[in-house]
Amino acid sequence: MPEFPVWYEHIHTCKQTGARVGKVHTPHGTFMTPAFMPVGTQASVKGMSPEEVSGMGAGIILSNTYHLWLRPGSDIVAEAGGLHKFMNWNGAVLTDSGGFQVFSLAKPKDIVEEGVKFSSHIDGRKLFLTPEISMQVQNDLGSDIIMAFDECCPYPSPKDYAKRSLERTTRWLDRCIEAHKRPDEQALFGIIQGSMYEDLRKISAEQITSRNLAGYAIGGISVGEPKELFLKMIDCTVPLMPEDKPRYLMGVGTPDYLIEGSCRGVDMFDCVLPTRMGRHGTILTDHGRKIIRDKKYARDFGPMDPGCDCYACRNYSAAYVRHLIKANEMFGLRLCTFHNIHYLLRLMERVREAIMNDRLGDFRDEYYKTISQEA
Amino acid sequence: MPEFPVWYEHIHTCKQTGARVGKVHTPHGTFMTPAFMPVGTQASVKGMSPEEVSGMGAGIILSNTYHLWLRPGSDIVAEAGGLHKFMNWNGAVLTDSGGFQVFSLAKPKDIVEEGVKFSSHIDGRKLFLTPEISMQVQNDLGSDIIMAFDECCPYPSPKDYAKRSLERTTRWLDRCIEAHKRPDEQALFGIIQGSMYEDLRKISAEQITSRNLAGYAIGGISVGEPKELFLKMIDCTVPLMPEDKPRYLMGVGTPDYLIEGSCRGVDMFDCVLPTRMGRHGTILTDHGRKIIRDKKYARDFGPMDPGCDCYACRNYSAAYVRHLIKANEMFGLRLCTFHNIHYLLRLMERVREAIMNDRLGDFRDEYYKTISQEA
Repeated sequence: MPEFPVWYEHIHTCKQTGARVGKVHTPHGTFMTPAFMPVGTQASVKGMSPEEVSGMGAGIILSNTYHLWLRPGSDIVAEAGGLHKFMNWNGAVLTDSGGFQVFSLAKPKDIVEEGVKFSSHIDGRKLFLTPEISMQVQNDLGSDIIMAFDECCPYPSPKDYAKRSLERTTRWLDRCIEAHKRPDEQALFGIIQGSMYEDLRKISAEQITSRNLAGYAIGGISVGEPKELFLKMIDCTVPLMPEDKPRYLMGVGTPDYLIEGSCRGVDMFDCVLPTRMGRHGTILTDHGRKIIRDKKYARDFGPMDPGCDCYACRNYSAAYVRHLIKANEMFGLRLCTFHNIHYLLRLMERVREAIMNDRLGDFRDEYYKTISQEA
Repeated sequence: MPEFPVWYEHIHTCKQTGARVGKVHTPHGTFMTPAFMPVGTQASVKGMSPEEVSGMGAGIILSNTYHLWLRPGSDIVAEAGGLHKFMNWNGAVLTDSGGFQVFSLAKPKDIVEEGVKFSSHIDGRKLFLTPEISMQVQNDLGSDIIMAFDECCPYPSPKDYAKRSLERTTRWLDRCIEAHKRPDEQALFGIIQGSMYEDLRKISAEQITSRNLAGYAIGGISVGEPKELFLKMIDCTVPLMPEDKPRYLMGVGTPDYLIEGSCRGVDMFDCVLPTRMGRHGTILTDHGRKIIRDKKYARDFGPMDPGCDCYACRNYSAAYVRHLIKANEMFGLRLCTFHNIHYLLRLMERVREAIMNDRLGDFRDEYYKTISQEA
């Protein structure tokens, strides 16, 4: 009997990179890792039906505690029978803690030991979010993986602030553990902070992983820092994370970051990139991004991404999708979003395959080569 | 061998009303009549995939010549292999002539014998639409049914204007017949005008039906007139239309108008109502319209329309759809649109069943009764 409702099963470690393939088991099914989690901020992956998202092979999605707390309210989601039932999604769900959104709305002086004061982005009303409230909301939502309430420092942050912040994040984690009311059904993950300082990352990793939790995340990176710093932070943090638990890199991202993270032993990623880019009529391909609304696709009667086998590329031409986007037709955004989510899910499949064949390093090199060449 | 690429097969006439069930055969499949045609103005039924529309049972959709002429341009659609291929729709397509949109953009003095001068709603550039251009554009689009270029008089219109206008519509029809280049693949329908004057309707019907065409339409009604006048105009026009050809009532509509039109022997209808209402978060039911964004649905965890078996009602609660609409989530509009198109297609199925059982008059009475009672 596993200790937690969510647990990691290791399958293979890549001899070339140390990347790993595994399975994460949850109360709502199992998904293969490394995994990309599409984001459904407000209980909907923008533009997509749940069947479309699961049909593409997504086993887990992310939803946002802050947004659902404000609208429709976690009490309504709880009354509906929880987030899975509310949105008709049978796979796994991870919810963030609300911290990331709240810190972007709060002034520095409004971050106090008890929690964070901020104004709602919807109607401006004053709100106060604490570790206890975050847990209560996430318990209401009933997500399979719930995240500890942490502070994500902006980039750059002074070292003394980053240190005080990570210490507070650890104290908040203990309050989360205490406040979490459904530990048999929902797995709490702790979040390692420490801004861009290697020694602080080490301190935070030691503190956070000393608490016995179902999984651990790296927070506070991919917040605007240069890529070298991003890689350095993962390099120094992942080795401090337990091998028998899932490792989640928050808010990542772009294809190259997903591959780099996987190379370093990360198991889970999430990002709004595929949905946000899709809504702007831009798609991801092995040869970089394509801005489908561009005039050069007006008479391109082939698929947006030749060789792609997604629903959009199998059935529609670049010229058609461009027309829909130019004409502000919803279906154009649906098709681009569909392609982008499919692209990242398929990319992770290719990453897992490369790991199984002990050649993720080669795969990375090949990917960087094709992505720099225009189609 | 039928004379036209689109032809009508009669199945049954309702003993109670004279309404008729039939089949319309087209180069892209057969559909049962009376039929409702969802509107895909810009080569997309707003928010829906072609599979979703056909999966609900729609055998024909309408698309707009004016919009496609301007964007992406009918040359691009022709290069793509025609509208069916461009939008990946395997059912039948009817295109309007562009007249309806153009007249709403043109000033009265810009309507001349040759055609209509107007400014593009996209970039304001000056354009000139004639019967010949309308035919050329519709030949490029490759729709199964193409409509003659006519003038739809505004309501109210002075009788002398309406008379001059209907005479011109007849002359334009002759130019359309002359200009139509693909008569073996695309069926041209003529349009009866005459504003709200019974004698003018009669004159127009005689003129238009004296031309041997695949089908005939009633235009220029449902333009803001009272319901009595609407019914009077159908009453006096339909009996003048041939029994062996499809009869199409343009721009209709609401559930009661669909039933009234069917009672009077109309076979085809189109309207933006289900998609437009869906995009505003309102749904059609047997008990009238429901504004799903209304607060009273915040904790309604049953389906939007109890008893409805559409995808939206089978899988989601009113509370969830309300949340999506309040949160500006695209998927909420998709679900409402889905329901509304399904509702009207299902309504036409019920109408056909009532005709087959010689009880469409009873069905109409029952419908008026339930629709006046709140759910």
